[in-house]
Amino acid sequence: MHYKLILKTIAIIQLVIAFFHMVCAGIAFYYNESEALMGFAVSITLLVGFGAFFIIFYRQTNPDNVSTKDCFLLVTLSWLAASLGGSLPFYISGAIPSYTDAFFETISGFSTTGASILTNIEGLPLSILFWRSLTHWLGGMGIVVLAVAILPLLGIGGMQLIKAEAPGPTVDKITPRITETAKYLWYIYVLFTVSETVLLMFGGMNLYDALTHTFGTVATGGFSTKNSSVSHFDSAYIDWVITIFMIFAGINFALHFKLLTGRFKSITKDSELKAYLAIIVIATLIITFSLSGTVYDTFTESLRFAAFQVATFITTTGFATANYENWPSLAQIILFMLMFVGGCAGSTGGGIKVIRLVTLLKQGINEMKYLVHPRGIFVIRLSGQTVKKDIVYAVSGFFFLYIFLLLVVTMIVATSHADVLTAFTTALSTVGNIGPGFGMIGPTENYAFYPDYVKWVLSAAMIIGRLEIYTILVLFTPMFWKK
Amino acid sequence: MHYKLILKTIAIIQLVIAFFHMVCAGIAFYYNESEALMGFAVSITLLVGFGAFFIIFYRQTNPDNVSTKDCFLLVTLSWLAASLGGSLPFYISGAIPSYTDAFFETISGFSTTGASILTNIEGLPLSILFWRSLTHWLGGMGIVVLAVAILPLLGIGGMQLIKAEAPGPTVDKITPRITETAKYLWYIYVLFTVSETVLLMFGGMNLYDALTHTFGTVATGGFSTKNSSVSHFDSAYIDWVITIFMIFAGINFALHFKLLTGRFKSITKDSELKAYLAIIVIATLIITFSLSGTVYDTFTESLRFAAFQVATFITTTGFATANYENWPSLAQIILFMLMFVGGCAGSTGGGIKVIRLVTLLKQGINEMKYLVHPRGIFVIRLSGQTVKKDIVYAVSGFFFLYIFLLLVVTMIVATSHADVLTAFTTALSTVGNIGPGFGMIGPTENYAFYPDYVKWVLSAAMIIGRLEIYTILVLFTPMFWKK
Repeated sequence: MHYKLILKTIAIIQLVIAFFHMVCAGIAFYYNESEALMGFAVSITLLVGFGAFFIIFYRQTNPDNVSTKDCFLLVTLSWLAASLGGSLPFYISGAIPSYTDAFFETISGFSTTGASILTNIEGLPLSILFWRSLTHWLGGMGIVVLAVAILPLLGIGGMQLIKAEAPGPTVDKITPRITETAKYLWYIYVLFTVSETVLLMFGGMNLYDALTHTFGTVATGGFSTKNSSVSHFDSAYIDWVITIFMIFAGINFALHFKLLTGRFKSITKDSELKAYLAIIVIATLIITFSLSGTVYDTFTESLRFAAFQVATFITTTGFATANYENWPSLAQIILFMLMFVGGCAGSTGGGIKVIRLVTLLKQGINEMKYLVHPRGIFVIRLSGQTVKKDIVYAVSGFFFLYIFLLLVVTMIVATSHADVLTAFTTALSTVGNIGPGFGMIGPTENYAFYPDYVKWVLSAAMIIGRLEIYTILVLFTPMFWKK
Repeated sequence: MHYKLILKTIAIIQLVIAFFHMVCAGIAFYYNESEALMGFAVSITLLVGFGAFFIIFYRQTNPDNVSTKDCFLLVTLSWLAASLGGSLPFYISGAIPSYTDAFFETISGFSTTGASILTNIEGLPLSILFWRSLTHWLGGMGIVVLAVAILPLLGIGGMQLIKAEAPGPTVDKITPRITETAKYLWYIYVLFTVSETVLLMFGGMNLYDALTHTFGTVATGGFSTKNSSVSHFDSAYIDWVITIFMIFAGINFALHFKLLTGRFKSITKDSELKAYLAIIVIATLIITFSLSGTVYDTFTESLRFAAFQVATFITTTGFATANYENWPSLAQIILFMLMFVGGCAGSTGGGIKVIRLVTLLKQGINEMKYLVHPRGIFVIRLSGQTVKKDIVYAVSGFFFLYIFLLLVVTMIVATSHADVLTAFTTALSTVGNIGPGFGMIGPTENYAFYPDYVKWVLSAAMIIGRLEIYTILVLFTPMFWKK
């Protein structure tokens, strides 16, 4: 194992976090939040000390001969280390008195889940809430690079399906390609961030609110700086801007890149995009009709709330503009079903991912063809290309492990006396990086009531789900550590 | 398509049903139930008339050249025809005034689901209730023959995994083998039936109660002749007898056959059996500990109710001895999870089936090995034998379609304003042929409140689940009807 490189990478991550803490410290200074300022100052000192030490100590270490195994460990430890470093200001400033809660909130941020233990968000310093939203933004950026550039090369759960660009180099030499790809993805991410912030400010938001809610949107995170989430602003314009950007953020960033470089043909051919948009349109229409005349007076108003809630669930964002637990059952069930779907692969969205479900549906249909013609040859085609059997195999394994993980998490959550619906949707919501659910974790509630051991398990669930399950589970196989 | 053979088979089925209606008519006569007697008499007349006509008309038709396609259609239409014929006494006698309800109750019986629309079971004539329990027994027998002898040859959803005997003949000549296999399976089924009936009578049940509850047990159906199900008898002995026979009924009947013929080695090696028993033991222990001292005073009493409820859920029987919705959350969640499992393939149990889950778990673990050693070769072994990739493929397709079907049924159920938990467990319970669920279909409730259109959809769900999904879905592919 290339431990030196791993430590050096973690050190760099801590320096990056320290840099953003400095930005937040500036905000704390501006708003005269002394305790938060102290929290950031201590955190910066610790992180810079740690980071600088290992970077200087391992300055000779270069990312040569990075093996697949190193990648798995590197990715997992990076996310963990970021969450440890990121949790410091919450805890040290006293904003979140329990360390379990501080860590939960941070990992919920970096994993772009948006599940919160805060009962009174607006009681916290603005600089602390800014950092809280920033964790989404940084985590979302990390996950896009990971999903588009790293996971496909590692072959996790059929993520090769989104290897959108020209054939990459071998695993041993992945660094140059990652750097190149990452650069373009950052451009797109920053472009989205700037556009949405400007559009939200046009709608009357101040810069602070516009930025924090943009972070929550483009990362499909869902942390808001308001107790009543996006419904606080009570503006159809803001709802629609956020809805549209959530849908954008749920699309494979490799496709956004193709769009910007004018390769429209491969976009219109994309099976995952078509399915993703079809699900959004159908789900929105069904919910709109079930709301219209019952919950809301007009079709337009129903459409607004339906589209927002569909987008927030399928993209696994978790913002709320309505208490959907008071909606008709059918509307609730559609949202419940969307919790299984998730965004497109290579987006900031979590969940199972649309492309996996499309693959499995086509596989299920193919099996029917085999029953009629046992000796026939039927292939699965996605975006006009034949999918190799090995990939379908990997996707099947992923899907099963996902459901299995859901049930295990549900069981552990249930030991805390959460009812069946609450426990199951808590699992769905954390493993799928969504945020809210049904029952005791509904849109107007939070995760504060769970005992500490459940919060630690849910923290693990969020990161396992975020890293496509395999990245972490593989670390627990004896084979991984052999030789 | 071999329509003549299909019609002739349906005619034979109606004659078999008419025969059992004669038995029930005898019971009606004995108990002096005139309306029921009239119902059976009319039904017998109609069925014998229909049956005799087509048997005489197609007397020259022989089961030669039966194609795979014929099998699919034959199996589906047989179950439907049986449910149509079987529903006649309920409706004609006036015992169940709505035809939708009568059909629902019959298909729930033949599919060994045990979901009921009856609000006062004990208000019905005993002969009618006897027929209701008999539908379980006949359906259970049918399903074992189907699962062990027919489905493996059709290659449905990896059911080749249970092709336990020597390699069978080709699909074109399957009839001799089916007849032979079916004979042995019947012996075992009858042996179980007689044993349980005798044991229950030892526990103080009269012959009528012993027989009807045995029918519900060995078929893993769950219809009781009492409003409060098995808890009516309030006997630890009866609970344990039924628990043990439910567990027996959930085991692959091919294994029972091997046991009776002394081939113990292949039994101890059986991966599915080991997993099935392990799940039962672990689930029972966890629930026992969660009940002990909280819901029940003693460990023994907790064990009794835990074991019964675990057996009734995993085998998809659906008998009740306790209102588990008042149990601690953990216990409820375990039962909820068991709803996904189901019995062993080749048993009378429904659900996904243990062997499929074992296969998928091994497949998920294998994928992790591939991540560490991308060029390695890892095979899945079950009961000491290597599983072909095609079969794993088929199992994956099945699993996905199962979950997909659950969500579709949930959505339709939700249009009737059932809450999320009720709608989802209604789908789980009908597709998995279980019976009870959570929420409005809990152990003390029934399906009466659903509107007619939901009852028809659930009827379809029960039969689709019972016939391993593919048998019916394949009929809706254009390819099936080509040429």
